[in-house]
Amino acid sequence: MHAEQRAHAHKTLTDHHINRALFANPLSVTWLTGFAPPPQLGPSPFAGGPSLVWYEGGDFVLIVVDTYASDAAASGCSLVTYQGYTIQEQLASAAHLTEALRHVVGAPGARAGLVGVEEGSLPVSLWSVLRAALPDGAEALAIDGWLRPLREVKTDEELAKLRENFALTDIGHAAARRAVRAGQREIDVWTAVESAIQQAAGQRVPVGNDCVVGYRQDNSGGWPRDLVIRSQDSVIVDLSTVKHGYWSDSCATYYAGEPTQRQREMHRTAADALEFAISLIKPGVIAREIDRAVRQFMADAGYPVYPHHTGHGVGVSGHEEPRIVPYNDRVLEPNMALMLEPGVYYPGETGVRLEDAVVVTATGAEILTHHDKSLP
Amino acid sequence: MHAEQRAHAHKTLTDHHINRALFANPLSVTWLTGFAPPPQLGPSPFAGGPSLVWYEGGDFVLIVVDTYASDAAASGCSLVTYQGYTIQEQLASAAHLTEALRHVVGAPGARAGLVGVEEGSLPVSLWSVLRAALPDGAEALAIDGWLRPLREVKTDEELAKLRENFALTDIGHAAARRAVRAGQREIDVWTAVESAIQQAAGQRVPVGNDCVVGYRQDNSGGWPRDLVIRSQDSVIVDLSTVKHGYWSDSCATYYAGEPTQRQREMHRTAADALEFAISLIKPGVIAREIDRAVRQFMADAGYPVYPHHTGHGVGVSGHEEPRIVPYNDRVLEPNMALMLEPGVYYPGETGVRLEDAVVVTATGAEILTHHDKSLP
Repeated sequence: MHAEQRAHAHKTLTDHHINRALFANPLSVTWLTGFAPPPQLGPSPFAGGPSLVWYEGGDFVLIVVDTYASDAAASGCSLVTYQGYTIQEQLASAAHLTEALRHVVGAPGARAGLVGVEEGSLPVSLWSVLRAALPDGAEALAIDGWLRPLREVKTDEELAKLRENFALTDIGHAAARRAVRAGQREIDVWTAVESAIQQAAGQRVPVGNDCVVGYRQDNSGGWPRDLVIRSQDSVIVDLSTVKHGYWSDSCATYYAGEPTQRQREMHRTAADALEFAISLIKPGVIAREIDRAVRQFMADAGYPVYPHHTGHGVGVSGHEEPRIVPYNDRVLEPNMALMLEPGVYYPGETGVRLEDAVVVTATGAEILTHHDKSLP
Repeated sequence: MHAEQRAHAHKTLTDHHINRALFANPLSVTWLTGFAPPPQLGPSPFAGGPSLVWYEGGDFVLIVVDTYASDAAASGCSLVTYQGYTIQEQLASAAHLTEALRHVVGAPGARAGLVGVEEGSLPVSLWSVLRAALPDGAEALAIDGWLRPLREVKTDEELAKLRENFALTDIGHAAARRAVRAGQREIDVWTAVESAIQQAAGQRVPVGNDCVVGYRQDNSGGWPRDLVIRSQDSVIVDLSTVKHGYWSDSCATYYAGEPTQRQREMHRTAADALEFAISLIKPGVIAREIDRAVRQFMADAGYPVYPHHTGHGVGVSGHEEPRIVPYNDRVLEPNMALMLEPGVYYPGETGVRLEDAVVVTATGAEILTHHDKSLP
């Protein structure tokens, strides 16, 4: 998997005369290899530190705890594992990871040149191993964020993973539409969504992002609580899934009963704004121009302009470049995958947000989300 | 929250003549402050790095991204937040975290002495900030794992958090018992469990650990898949929850139909082994002696001895000291919280595991789990 990504990374590093590099950012590791450990419960107590990718002379080596050996083997790059769990001696996975890295990096030798390091993610203990392996005079260079621009344009392999995730959020939305009823709580809607998604996937799938009833003071987003939905309430359900380490995203607004006239108008305006936003998407358009135009659309319709982004990229992170925000002069290119999500909020009263995902095509946009966003 | 923990940490650091220290391990941060960011979807894309705790002269300062400000404020230690999300400029949370740390650590001045650092968790970029603030000749010392022994004995505040989590796993088990039926899949049982737990909690709660039908080759543990449960199957359901940053754990085995004679005998043996294990728990007992005795019990009953631990501690991690394993000469003390989980496995056929949590009392053990582990 992800040989194309590694080729892109190789080119960037070579262009910068870097012939060795250590990646420790989980997003970099997933993007370079396709390997993504499950996030749901935080880091494994048996891992000695983050998964790593060591780059040298065009080759990439993935270093993971043995628990993940079979998942990581699918990556197609060289794999080094180290012992995590054992009952025979004290858990020493941090020491085992250190040894594994030392082995992979090798002796100092006479290798000169720059060594790239993701300094914002690499723990000091592992940095010490790398430093000891550097020949005198070798220089380390922070390469944090270098892969970020490469991640913006998706490969076919990545688009397939994204599509699989968007199909799951579509299923989640169908469940949310059924579950939003007077008397139910936000958390009841949420569990219906999570269950539908995981049952369809046949496995555990992490699910985000928001499930908020309109009368919340901050009603644009937040985790579900035990707040009861009443017949006149709007409920914003913003869903992401993370399968294969890739994220989906999507939002719709549902109503427990018959929407009020005001809610209908808000909803239609959000739908029109979303349709308008999608119509703007094509190669060559500047991100901030989309943002400006959609905000203007909302203002022209006589509504308060949403305080958040108009949209953002999606991939190994749920929020990445290109961000559709006021300052961003990034130019859209084919195969960028991005979210568009205009909303209208009256804090403490009611709110509406609708969100679709698109992939930029040669001439426009293909919509990746197919959930029902219509008024009841 | 957790003033008692900070007092213990202060004493340990002072005993080692350390008057400044930087904690970056998420488990340390939660234990020292009570603050625990939600793990479900991995690190926030708007955080600039791990949450940190800076210790100096008896004071503790918690450094978190502004998204978590209100949750972190409950900690009761000094709080410093930095900007995460903005639409007005490029996301620069890593730089903001760096600035926040620089501000908290202060200028080098004339402060001498050792500086403790969790080197296995602290990113190089943040280490650079700290190093720049050290006076010439100041020495850094790795303090990874120093809090681990302190974490073994729980405070009343921690026990209250653990009890709340164990009450949730009890609810999850009741749902699992109802959901295990012929024709259902592992994932169907799992979503029933997750839904019941989260609906009872009125909020999202991360749930682990295993949901495996007996005919799996590796049938002692694993995430639920789309494997169908048949009428003669056993299903091991091992549940943890993580609320307030504290873990529960617990296991039971359910049957889709009438258990076979062999399953009944296995189940009774596991129940007897668990009861025996609990009977051994009291202050002064050595961990490895419990492990040895329970394995012997299983062998004497004529069953293959389970390949995993007999038990382990539980707290801010789902698996911590005291581990009940063959090598461990740790002596039990009052207010240690630990799991006991003997099992019997015939790979590819059927398996049974039963697990309870106990807290060590002055004279024995109090059981924290109250789920029904009986045969149908």
